[in-house]
Amino acid sequence: MINPQSLALGTKRNTIMELADYGRRRAAQIGKENVFDFSIGNPSVPAPAQVNEAILDIIQNMDSLAVHSYTSTMGDLKTRAVIAQDLNGRFGCDAKAEELLLCCGAAPEVAAACKALTTEGAEILVFAPYFPEYKPYVEQAGAIFRIVPADIPNFQLNLDALEAMLTPNTSAVIVNNPNNPVGSVYSRQTIEKLAALLDRKSQQFGHRIYIIADEPYRELHYDGAVVPFIPGIYPHTVVCYSYSKSLSLPGERVGYIYVPGNAQDGRDLYHAIVGAARAMGHVCAPSLMQLVLQRCAHLQPDLAVYSKNRQTLVDALTQYGYEMAKPEGAFYIFLKAPGGDDQAFSKKAMAKDLLLMPGSDFGCPGYLRLCYCVSYDTIVRSLPIFKELIEN
Amino acid sequence: MINPQSLALGTKRNTIMELADYGRRRAAQIGKENVFDFSIGNPSVPAPAQVNEAILDIIQNMDSLAVHSYTSTMGDLKTRAVIAQDLNGRFGCDAKAEELLLCCGAAPEVAAACKALTTEGAEILVFAPYFPEYKPYVEQAGAIFRIVPADIPNFQLNLDALEAMLTPNTSAVIVNNPNNPVGSVYSRQTIEKLAALLDRKSQQFGHRIYIIADEPYRELHYDGAVVPFIPGIYPHTVVCYSYSKSLSLPGERVGYIYVPGNAQDGRDLYHAIVGAARAMGHVCAPSLMQLVLQRCAHLQPDLAVYSKNRQTLVDALTQYGYEMAKPEGAFYIFLKAPGGDDQAFSKKAMAKDLLLMPGSDFGCPGYLRLCYCVSYDTIVRSLPIFKELIEN
Repeated sequence: MINPQSLALGTKRNTIMELADYGRRRAAQIGKENVFDFSIGNPSVPAPAQVNEAILDIIQNMDSLAVHSYTSTMGDLKTRAVIAQDLNGRFGCDAKAEELLLCCGAAPEVAAACKALTTEGAEILVFAPYFPEYKPYVEQAGAIFRIVPADIPNFQLNLDALEAMLTPNTSAVIVNNPNNPVGSVYSRQTIEKLAALLDRKSQQFGHRIYIIADEPYRELHYDGAVVPFIPGIYPHTVVCYSYSKSLSLPGERVGYIYVPGNAQDGRDLYHAIVGAARAMGHVCAPSLMQLVLQRCAHLQPDLAVYSKNRQTLVDALTQYGYEMAKPEGAFYIFLKAPGGDDQAFSKKAMAKDLLLMPGSDFGCPGYLRLCYCVSYDTIVRSLPIFKELIEN
Repeated sequence: MINPQSLALGTKRNTIMELADYGRRRAAQIGKENVFDFSIGNPSVPAPAQVNEAILDIIQNMDSLAVHSYTSTMGDLKTRAVIAQDLNGRFGCDAKAEELLLCCGAAPEVAAACKALTTEGAEILVFAPYFPEYKPYVEQAGAIFRIVPADIPNFQLNLDALEAMLTPNTSAVIVNNPNNPVGSVYSRQTIEKLAALLDRKSQQFGHRIYIIADEPYRELHYDGAVVPFIPGIYPHTVVCYSYSKSLSLPGERVGYIYVPGNAQDGRDLYHAIVGAARAMGHVCAPSLMQLVLQRCAHLQPDLAVYSKNRQTLVDALTQYGYEMAKPEGAFYIFLKAPGGDDQAFSKKAMAKDLLLMPGSDFGCPGYLRLCYCVSYDTIVRSLPIFKELIEN
């Protein structure tokens, strides 16, 4: 009596992780330096020095039991207060510790938010191209997964298409800003238009449509792009944050959910998320990392490395004839697949040990995702392969 | 459109965590030393020194990116190999790295195992008294939660009652050995009887009934009690292990699932668990702790402290007139509530800042759970209160 959906999810697996695993195996065969692995968003900038300094200090100077014990399910209160203060200072909001829930990264946060916002027949919408794991998160919640078509070639939010798809069953819309896989940033004006639409439709349908804001890339933006803080525009938002990218701690699984106090039914929603997380086995976020965040939550990433990688790739690939959306955030470039077939191009690239994710996996065939969180040397040495691939 | 089940779970919350939170608040008011908090299984023995030494060495000497990056979803291969080797050495099994899945502790492991073993109408059974979170784990999976009545006053597995409750819809039985909340240990002979019953019923129903073995307390046993390794008796078992108790790392959220290679449909089941975990947002177990396990997975806990606590309590409480099941494992004593009303007695105790969990929360009214993973001083100073409570 094995669950067929679970089996399918576990057998086919997440293509990103599959490709990354392939990259690891290939690296073991031919050497890490000979695999041009642009498949996974594993930060290439180390965690700020303060993070490891904090770990050493905590381990050397704090009571071991205090470090490694369970915290409250919602997270250490002092850590939550520090994070709330950081948000308030940076975004002028009024976040409170009790509006935050520390979790094991954005993935279980989005899954729990989906569950908390699902009643019989509920629909949760995403904008293509989208992070492929949204589908299992929405479906495990019991909601219907609906995809708003991509806005090609601008890759902004396709609000006309969204409006046509909003129904009385719409419970939430997932917004990922800056966007994975495109690297686009939705401006304040765009989010304001989205908010106005959701307000209007919420009124029309007689229930609130929430935004689930998946924001692991919030701090990663370039060329002066400004990433708006969505709750400041639309308070009916569940912020799902992770320190995976901003502190380069993806493996440590630590982040937070924030449900603003002025969100409609905000306290109920917060408690429903706590309940949903509990049913999925959330006990607490890793306790050592919670203590690290008390000292490091305010740190900002050093973007110089990513910025240089990005510029080098954009310049060279454009020169070779590749087309791409303007990459203003995260560490992704979304390339138009030469020849139009992303799967075929990805395979062709793979044969040269250059790993690119097909856009089909993000609900956007004809494109390829390139993660430029790799060493600069990898980028420089990959350029001739990119050139050769488009020329043939 | 807020999910009412999630809201209920998040509002009522886990009584253990509620009581532990109360204990924390009360400690802030009257001083930690004046709260006799027997409510939560937070180990009172610090992690072995090697754990913190490993953390320091890893942070000081390894590449920060290698420490904090995503691992494979299933977990670092070397860590899994080390754990497999440890299991094989201790239990004479033939575990392989690819049969292990590293997870964020036993809670999400049990939740994922339940999901993977749930098809339409599936029933998952637990033995009372049971860890209360099993109910939300089973129900989030979509299975029907059924409780096998307690075997009072022995608190062994009630196999006659189980047999009467097994139906063609039974998918799995959760076994927690040593047991929380009782502290009982099920012997090899008991597990053999259970295995024979499940084998017979699996044949009768034409499908395999699995055991979900929730084993965070496997290494915690006293007085020469032997905790059998269930897959060695019944291979159709999903082992859900956590290092929370054996390495005193409950806050760090790290453990593993083991599906033996000779379990029926074992590979499918393994993949279905990977898929179920993925849908709940499992990305990887905390990466630093995975590295720590490479060095520390084989360590055994120092049981002297718990053993002394246990003996002191058993001797004193017995002398005062309390009755209890024989506590051979974990760090729990299951007391018969004087007067018969566990809720009332728990409240009476709470008024004296002595925190005991009512057995009702474990599906066994009339009893109280006492966690003796506290300081010896707390135990000694709590004894007059226990004495006073039973005398009045």
